[in-house]
Amino acid sequence: MKENKYDDSVFFEKYAQMSRSVQGLDGAGEWYALKQLLPDFNGRRVLDLGCGYGWHCMYAVQNGAASVLGIDISEKMLETAQCKNAGPKITYCRAAMEDLNFEKESFDIVISSLAFHYVKDFKALVKNICRWLTPGGQFVFSAEHPVFTAQGSQDWYYNNDGSILHFPVDNYYYEGKRQAVFLGEKVTKYHRTLTTYIDTLLRCGFTLKRLVEPAPPENMLDLPGMKDEMRRPMMLLVAAQKN
Amino acid sequence: MKENKYDDSVFFEKYAQMSRSVQGLDGAGEWYALKQLLPDFNGRRVLDLGCGYGWHCMYAVQNGAASVLGIDISEKMLETAQCKNAGPKITYCRAAMEDLNFEKESFDIVISSLAFHYVKDFKALVKNICRWLTPGGQFVFSAEHPVFTAQGSQDWYYNNDGSILHFPVDNYYYEGKRQAVFLGEKVTKYHRTLTTYIDTLLRCGFTLKRLVEPAPPENMLDLPGMKDEMRRPMMLLVAAQKN
Repeated sequence: MKENKYDDSVFFEKYAQMSRSVQGLDGAGEWYALKQLLPDFNGRRVLDLGCGYGWHCMYAVQNGAASVLGIDISEKMLETAQCKNAGPKITYCRAAMEDLNFEKESFDIVISSLAFHYVKDFKALVKNICRWLTPGGQFVFSAEHPVFTAQGSQDWYYNNDGSILHFPVDNYYYEGKRQAVFLGEKVTKYHRTLTTYIDTLLRCGFTLKRLVEPAPPENMLDLPGMKDEMRRPMMLLVAAQKN
Repeated sequence: MKENKYDDSVFFEKYAQMSRSVQGLDGAGEWYALKQLLPDFNGRRVLDLGCGYGWHCMYAVQNGAASVLGIDISEKMLETAQCKNAGPKITYCRAAMEDLNFEKESFDIVISSLAFHYVKDFKALVKNICRWLTPGGQFVFSAEHPVFTAQGSQDWYYNNDGSILHFPVDNYYYEGKRQAVFLGEKVTKYHRTLTTYIDTLLRCGFTLKRLVEPAPPENMLDLPGMKDEMRRPMMLLVAAQKN
């Protein structure tokens, strides 16, 4: 049973207050870096796995995509997407991405933003994505960094005075379920190693084009808490191409 | 001035007692994983950067390499290499790898084992390696993992009773010099992010073939201390091909 935390109304309300929910793409710290990894959308058929509010779907259409299919497990997410980011070229569909089934070569581009750490079996998903893409098709995703997911709590380790001492890594090679705390709520996430993220792509028919761990942009370093974000990586951005 | 710690006689003696020094390749925990990333050496011209005792040079020759050039900054290392792993197809040369200069396309294969974390400017070195390799040439290296080099001390964080609590990560995005403790001695290492290791390769003319973080082999997990090695990654193994 796949967890559908975003349909928990308390969690959803908290998520709605994050700057990435209020401001859209420009409110997401990694957007500047992610944008540089995105392919040319012009005339392309796009699949967005875990589309959330649909910001990336709308971006793809605004940049020429022929059609975009946005998938999310959460009904509330898709209601918001339908409200904020609807258009004739965008279709939203409620499903767990692990259960999807398309004809081979159905898409030219597959994107996914911060959703794969909710997926248990990454390899099975990558094999599917490879099958759904046309040869030369592009696959761009962000996910939580293995350093961030390994220990589980996803919290800093603090000094007695409440200041940050460092970020804890533990159980790195033990992949699987973690009970994380996100927005003050318990959320199930799946930790996997960098090897599993990247070597799986390389062995399942993809060529890696870019691998970026987004750091806070320099002009944001004076904002509260942003200097802490220089102390540990939180996300992995990956661009790959189907062979 | 590049540090030449391995010519410090106290440090060198301690290094000589490590299992990788006594037993050679089979004494190195990562060898099983690294071996699977190595290319076909048959008839190839090989460069080994930071060759140490010369184990990998000998392995290349035993597997058909036409010639191997082993480079190391340490005279003591090369004396041992000359003693343990000499042969008519192997040449050892004392130099800092940052200072090397070869004609373009001088080598078919470049290898390096656990040496790049002593190098300050990775990008400059990668550009050189790319120039020295023939098109389609192979580049395989191991280096200390960014998780392992970030905070600096390279030690676990302990509970009051002396047991391991977790491994600390800090200052991840601040690349550069770290004062590490290795074999009880102070050693200068250079931390860099995974982005710098991998994205630099992708942007400097290489295709990534494999990316592996070697975990302790299952049949070694009952040896003392080996279960701890499941708790944080220590090395990165990379296989790339010149475009």
